[in-house]
Amino acid sequence: MNPLKGACIIGQSGGPTSVINASAYGVIKTALDSDVITKVYGARYGIQGVLKDQLMDMEMEDPEELALLMTTPSSALGSCRYKLKDYTEDDTDYKRILEIFKKYDIRYFFYNGGNDSMDTCNKISKYMLHVGYECRIMGIPKTIDNDLFGTDHCPGYGSAAKFIATSVAEISRDAQVYDMGSIVILEIMGRNAGWLAASAALASVTGEGPDLVYLPETDFDMDKFLADVKRIEEEKGTVIIAVSEGIHDKDGRFISEYGSTLAQQKDAFGHSQMGGLASTLERIVKEKLGVKCRGIEFSLLQRCAGHIASATDIQESFLAGKAAVEQAIAGVTDKMVGFSRPEEGDYECQLQLLSLSSVANAEKTVPLDWINEEHNNVNQKFIDYALPLIQGVPEIPTVDGLPRYPKLKRVFAK
Amino acid sequence: MNPLKGACIIGQSGGPTSVINASAYGVIKTALDSDVITKVYGARYGIQGVLKDQLMDMEMEDPEELALLMTTPSSALGSCRYKLKDYTEDDTDYKRILEIFKKYDIRYFFYNGGNDSMDTCNKISKYMLHVGYECRIMGIPKTIDNDLFGTDHCPGYGSAAKFIATSVAEISRDAQVYDMGSIVILEIMGRNAGWLAASAALASVTGEGPDLVYLPETDFDMDKFLADVKRIEEEKGTVIIAVSEGIHDKDGRFISEYGSTLAQQKDAFGHSQMGGLASTLERIVKEKLGVKCRGIEFSLLQRCAGHIASATDIQESFLAGKAAVEQAIAGVTDKMVGFSRPEEGDYECQLQLLSLSSVANAEKTVPLDWINEEHNNVNQKFIDYALPLIQGVPEIPTVDGLPRYPKLKRVFAK
Repeated sequence: MNPLKGACIIGQSGGPTSVINASAYGVIKTALDSDVITKVYGARYGIQGVLKDQLMDMEMEDPEELALLMTTPSSALGSCRYKLKDYTEDDTDYKRILEIFKKYDIRYFFYNGGNDSMDTCNKISKYMLHVGYECRIMGIPKTIDNDLFGTDHCPGYGSAAKFIATSVAEISRDAQVYDMGSIVILEIMGRNAGWLAASAALASVTGEGPDLVYLPETDFDMDKFLADVKRIEEEKGTVIIAVSEGIHDKDGRFISEYGSTLAQQKDAFGHSQMGGLASTLERIVKEKLGVKCRGIEFSLLQRCAGHIASATDIQESFLAGKAAVEQAIAGVTDKMVGFSRPEEGDYECQLQLLSLSSVANAEKTVPLDWINEEHNNVNQKFIDYALPLIQGVPEIPTVDGLPRYPKLKRVFAK
Repeated sequence: MNPLKGACIIGQSGGPTSVINASAYGVIKTALDSDVITKVYGARYGIQGVLKDQLMDMEMEDPEELALLMTTPSSALGSCRYKLKDYTEDDTDYKRILEIFKKYDIRYFFYNGGNDSMDTCNKISKYMLHVGYECRIMGIPKTIDNDLFGTDHCPGYGSAAKFIATSVAEISRDAQVYDMGSIVILEIMGRNAGWLAASAALASVTGEGPDLVYLPETDFDMDKFLADVKRIEEEKGTVIIAVSEGIHDKDGRFISEYGSTLAQQKDAFGHSQMGGLASTLERIVKEKLGVKCRGIEFSLLQRCAGHIASATDIQESFLAGKAAVEQAIAGVTDKMVGFSRPEEGDYECQLQLLSLSSVANAEKTVPLDWINEEHNNVNQKFIDYALPLIQGVPEIPTVDGLPRYPKLKRVFAK
């Protein structure tokens, strides 16, 4: 088979992670080193950069600066949340993408993102097949949420899990310094899948784990929750609680909306008053149990705290990007690079290829038999699954005691 | 001079830091190695442990476990916020302390804490002098707030500053991943002194610093603030803002209370609705400027994120504890160990001794000439001061990818 010569585009999409740039670097370095790929373009702000003809010539970047992408959080090329319509309904964007692909002789398209991004990737792939434009299209998974279908886990999850587990261990110690009790509620990202909140339980490996963990995979019962908190508070004084932002009651109502009797009340600026989940639960616990309670939202740090990234996650993210390029050069297209592990024995990350159609718009949640019977924690099955993903301390280049990030020139192709 | 033989107590007090245990280890190890100090006791929960006769025999601990204190955040011995009355008003507690000191032949008392703890230390010292009980009493500074009088800086500040500066760099990158603007407001601890919020500006050394920094040392003007945010938002889209929790207007009213028109409004549980400073400013910015805005509170992590501690801070904290013991053995009493640095040339941490009376109840704030003219950032003088304090990456023992903390037996003396 003659190799398909031509240029490639790498695009980043969706919410960033601590390691999304490691995958980008896997693509960029492998593509730059290849004899088959003639040019390597980085799309500025994902597919928007293609639509706007904003493609950065990656060859113009200093290789040493590019190498810093391995330990640089957040999307260095820029990301987007742009949703493509079906081309059968409206093919305007697709015609434009094809125009740009032809202009730059793009024969390889690598898209790095989560659920929605795999949908974008899948749609472009199907359109190119439809119009008969030869272009190999590969998805590279990325999401702290770990909810992509078909893959054992997602690049980005291990590092977010490591930040969360480490922070839980630290906060758990902090909460115990006084001789009086203290209740801490940690709000963790995850609307429909509880993988991130579950990762708080990893701290139990060193005895610093949370007492209670609530995931959106099961219904949240406020009375049961308050009884759990009260019991543990009486037993040991301090209670550490991890909650997914997406927990809901049996009627499907988000617990974060339990403060919404306030929605009718306006503040001085006419805005409705609705706090996040942590502050809602904090108020309810204080009121119902009359105890000291502090709600903490990890917020953006859980997806960008590159300083505590998992070395395993960084390496695997790089390999996913590298494999996407190698497979595409070898003739593969219309696939997402996924991971699997041996069914028995020690953890090992194995690559697999999944059809884009199968992963787009499908969501993977925490198996119910990894959650305990009381639905207030995870069990050993989850720990065994997630613990290998947070291993290893990366060497992070620093300057003046702070992480050293790449200075990219961002030279646009003409 | 004959050395003063006898036992010692080390107590930890006030809010914990990432490195307070490094100071405790400096005391414990130096005291255990000494021929003069006969027994080493750790007070459980600070001075409360003395009052309650809960003294842990540190000799019973495994030396290897004790060594892990160097990289273990939060008070491992337990802390308290107990305030002693003046002994001239009520000497009940003092008599009890003297009784315990006599019971265990305590001739050395080391107390590790912030402003209030130095007050406690000072009061005990003066009482022991008053009753003529020979006991050498030394304070060891500790506070993330960096507001202790007389010392160049405080153990604990460098690590908190490093967490804040690193997180600001990461969040700053995260806020720029999309092609639309984003405003992020970071709420940082510090009621009266702005040292911590100022440390956000350290990220500017690598070009990732905040656009605006507001400290409680100057009056906050809401109109000026909104104009600043609007101007920068129009210029560059993304605005990163660091605020001290204690910022206030020219009338002394806390900005965090600007939401208090809501104080009359109650939620479903009859509670007043008042968010923190970050959420108050978030609402005001959204309302007045009509732009996307996210408020983030660093909360407890800024004082317990030992995983990103400054190696310089850890070393200095250890040395402060060690010096306290060595000086006390040499005959010094009624002092706090402080730091100074050369007036010119490279940074170097030098030890100095300060009288407990002079440091107790005095507060050090950020010098006004380290704040820019517009009062919306710090200048190079602050950077030059703080940057040396965040240097160095400590080697943190881990197990299963998580920090390894000591397992203390906590054997109480009889």
